[in-house]
Amino acid sequence: MTETHRLGARVMALIDDLARHTDEPGRLTRLYLSPAHRATAEAVLGLMRAAGLSARIDAVGNVVGRREGREPGLPALVLGSHIDSVVDAGRYDGPLGVVGGLVAAQEIIARGAVLPFALEVVAFGDEENVRFPTSLSTSKAWAGQYRPEWLEGRDAGATRLRDALVAFGGDPDGIPALARSPRDVVGYLEIHIEQGPALEAAGQPVGVVTGIVGLTRARCTVTGEANHAGTVPMGMRRDALAAAAEMALAVERLGEGVPGAVATVGSLAVTPGAVNVIAGRVDFTLDVRAPEDGARRALVAAIDAACRVIAGRRGVGYSAEIYMDNRAVDLDPGLRACLDAAARRHGFAPLRLASGATHDAVSMAALGPAAMLFVRCRGGISHNPAESITLEDADAATRVLLDAVLALAEARAG
Amino acid sequence: MTETHRLGARVMALIDDLARHTDEPGRLTRLYLSPAHRATAEAVLGLMRAAGLSARIDAVGNVVGRREGREPGLPALVLGSHIDSVVDAGRYDGPLGVVGGLVAAQEIIARGAVLPFALEVVAFGDEENVRFPTSLSTSKAWAGQYRPEWLEGRDAGATRLRDALVAFGGDPDGIPALARSPRDVVGYLEIHIEQGPALEAAGQPVGVVTGIVGLTRARCTVTGEANHAGTVPMGMRRDALAAAAEMALAVERLGEGVPGAVATVGSLAVTPGAVNVIAGRVDFTLDVRAPEDGARRALVAAIDAACRVIAGRRGVGYSAEIYMDNRAVDLDPGLRACLDAAARRHGFAPLRLASGATHDAVSMAALGPAAMLFVRCRGGISHNPAESITLEDADAATRVLLDAVLALAEARAG
Repeated sequence: MTETHRLGARVMALIDDLARHTDEPGRLTRLYLSPAHRATAEAVLGLMRAAGLSARIDAVGNVVGRREGREPGLPALVLGSHIDSVVDAGRYDGPLGVVGGLVAAQEIIARGAVLPFALEVVAFGDEENVRFPTSLSTSKAWAGQYRPEWLEGRDAGATRLRDALVAFGGDPDGIPALARSPRDVVGYLEIHIEQGPALEAAGQPVGVVTGIVGLTRARCTVTGEANHAGTVPMGMRRDALAAAAEMALAVERLGEGVPGAVATVGSLAVTPGAVNVIAGRVDFTLDVRAPEDGARRALVAAIDAACRVIAGRRGVGYSAEIYMDNRAVDLDPGLRACLDAAARRHGFAPLRLASGATHDAVSMAALGPAAMLFVRCRGGISHNPAESITLEDADAATRVLLDAVLALAEARAG
Repeated sequence: MTETHRLGARVMALIDDLARHTDEPGRLTRLYLSPAHRATAEAVLGLMRAAGLSARIDAVGNVVGRREGREPGLPALVLGSHIDSVVDAGRYDGPLGVVGGLVAAQEIIARGAVLPFALEVVAFGDEENVRFPTSLSTSKAWAGQYRPEWLEGRDAGATRLRDALVAFGGDPDGIPALARSPRDVVGYLEIHIEQGPALEAAGQPVGVVTGIVGLTRARCTVTGEANHAGTVPMGMRRDALAAAAEMALAVERLGEGVPGAVATVGSLAVTPGAVNVIAGRVDFTLDVRAPEDGARRALVAAIDAACRVIAGRRGVGYSAEIYMDNRAVDLDPGLRACLDAAARRHGFAPLRLASGATHDAVSMAALGPAAMLFVRCRGGISHNPAESITLEDADAATRVLLDAVLALAEARAG
């Protein structure tokens, strides 16, 4: 290992260490407020304190570390990302931004640099929104956009978010006080793996994100009639699974028809779900994203209409509940230029690219300038244990972030 | 309640009582070797002994009660059905035949009738074959057709059948000794709800079953690539769920094309199954039935070929494992005539109809003459909590069975 890659080596070692914490033996699953989330939060808390930050876990489970600027109480530049994961996840989606921010902050502290703003590092807790019906709830708490009804939502095991939060050690009553004022935020910078193939194709380790696509999520239910799979003629069935299959293919076909859009049925549960019983009910999820909000909403409406036609023809019930409707967000041109310039000073020609995934930067953009630096990942694979980045690219991203922070400090001091 | 319906009232009361035993609060689920199965077996054991039968639970969990004929050790006429159920089941599928046989036997004992054969009542344990990858395993044990590999099969929680059987109190080593000789069996008579709409449409309480359709079951697996639902363009996906949806529709379409056949995907599980992850793997079941074995096998081959074409076009993996392949079975003309005559003596004009469902009579037909009496059920609904029969029809079926047993005794004695 060369001195050149010292920061990247530290980032990779810390990420590997955090990847030990999982809710499921044999694979990485770290859902919001789970025991593995708690263990990871404690580990990050320890790392922040060891790095010289004043750190705590807040009322919704975010870990936040702070180093004051040249005087106490200055507005903060926030670096970070999230530490929750999807089911059977990779190790970089989220932790890379947390650890990258932490290592950059530690380097600034080690250099004794005095900044004209406070520096904060955050590990948000609920970015994937897999466990509860929420939407970036933990960063929305900072943005003052936490919805009280999220506390009443339940996970697949019928546990309420409110109860899980209390068991975690959080404080539902303390959520309103987490809301920050834009006056207290200089900006937000987040490193994240690209989760797509563009940087690999361009041969570049990092890219500057122009904006984040809009996103609609819905829970859909098909109700047919459960009956014996051997005795009911094909023409007399009201098969919820066959109907849902036709709907899933409609989602795919309609999604393909809108340039830049994606539409996914990622979860589908059959009731009763036995080999010899015609399905009586199917619950599935819908995830629709597009760069243009109008195109996205038109696509959602077209999918809904297609599902209703299918249900009507098959004599089954159909209902859909939209529980997430996030507008597309443009990231801050000034911070984007700062990241771009830093990358160029390190010899890179950073790609400009949109993000097809939602990120906590969407919430933070409501508080002040926000920007993101994408890192090349192998094969564009993410949300998968095969997720992979190189030590060299982790080093490049961390150095670009560090350089951008120092450049911002210089500009602000000047 | 009139004296006329005394036997039906007893049958309905006992079925209601057995329906208390369930593995899932709020709905009836009684899987083979579960705690609820054990509790039901104990209850049936008690009922058999109270009726004057010598009763025990055998090595695979069947409950069997016996009353000797005019001398000990005579071959037995067996009456019965099963006490396991599907998930979220009705209460009559299985228990009606067990309780109907029990009440008929009790009536014979109460009348002091001396028969030229032993009379046995059986409650088989594994007819639905929902929990483990088996096929009528508990009645196959009696027929000497138990496959040792069934003991190594696992349920959804990874419990082996062998271990579940030992925990239940059964004896894997005792299974070979359960095999009966055809010399020891006079015949087998099973009452069962129709699970279809034919008797209701004909306005008849009972029907005589001509035969049982052949059945193929398979476990199918589609392997795609799990990836981020927001960042992978539609055209670059290998979505296991979209592929499986297309396969499920092919199963439906091909099943519709074969007269008298049915083809069902009743269970489908998505991995990882999250709203924001493209499905990496789908496991689904296939259930194909047809009156003609050749037509059934051709249909299974056509489905397999269609799935392979879909998988090839979509770049996903596909495999299918057939774990059940039961030939169509004709029931015994002599016993069918006996049931038909008994029904006519009670004033009914019994329908002759094929069974689209498999039954333990398939196994018992390997040991000797076997026949089945179907009972009208409301709306043809089965494998559903709405499963329903009338007290009058339960009475009619029990009296027809009783009368058939006495007629057989007379014919054999004469």
